[in-house]
Amino acid sequence: MGRVVVDVMPKPEILDPQGKAVAGALPRLGFTQFSSVRQGKRFELEVDGPVTAEVLAAAREAAEHVLSNPIIEDVVTVFDASDDVAAG
Amino acid sequence: MGRVVVDVMPKPEILDPQGKAVAGALPRLGFTQFSSVRQGKRFELEVDGPVTAEVLAAAREAAEHVLSNPIIEDVVTVFDASDDVAAG
Repeated sequence: MGRVVVDVMPKPEILDPQGKAVAGALPRLGFTQFSSVRQGKRFELEVDGPVTAEVLAAAREAAEHVLSNPIIEDVVTVFDASDDVAAG
Repeated sequence: MGRVVVDVMPKPEILDPQGKAVAGALPRLGFTQFSSVRQGKRFELEVDGPVTAEVLAAAREAAEHVLSNPIIEDVVTVFDASDDVAAG
C-alpha cells in the first residue's frame, strides 16, 4: 500500500489567526525560542497499489484544486511517503 | 533564520470527519486513485537563530504538550526545515 503526503500552508501575506494564537501561547507556557508560528494542513492520501508517477501527478492536481484554496494557500510539498506506511 | 516543522495527525483509531469528507469528494471530482484520506496539521515554528539541539528539543516538547492533543493526535514528525527558509 502506498501513501502520498500533501502539505498546504497559508500564503505568507495571509493572516493566520490559528498560528498567531499558538505563537502567543508558547511563551506563556515557557517556550520562548520561537518568534512566529504558522499553521497549515497535512493530508495523507492512501493508495491501494504503489505510488506511480501517475498517482503522484493526480495527487499534485488534487492538491492544487481540491485540498488547497489557491487564493489563500500554497501547496508546499507533495511526496511519496510509502516508506512510512511500511515502517508502521 | 531557522524553521522547525511539526506534523500532527489524528490517531489511526480516531474518526477523522475532515479526511472522510475529502475522501468522498475526490472520486466525484475525477480522482479515483485514493482509497482513503486523513487530514492533520502542519506547524512551521520560526526561530531567530539557528535550529540547535535545544531548539529541536523544545519544539518536540511543544509539539507534545501544546501543538497536539495526545488523546486524539500523534506527533508524526518534528524536523529542522531551515533549508526551506534559505531556499525561499
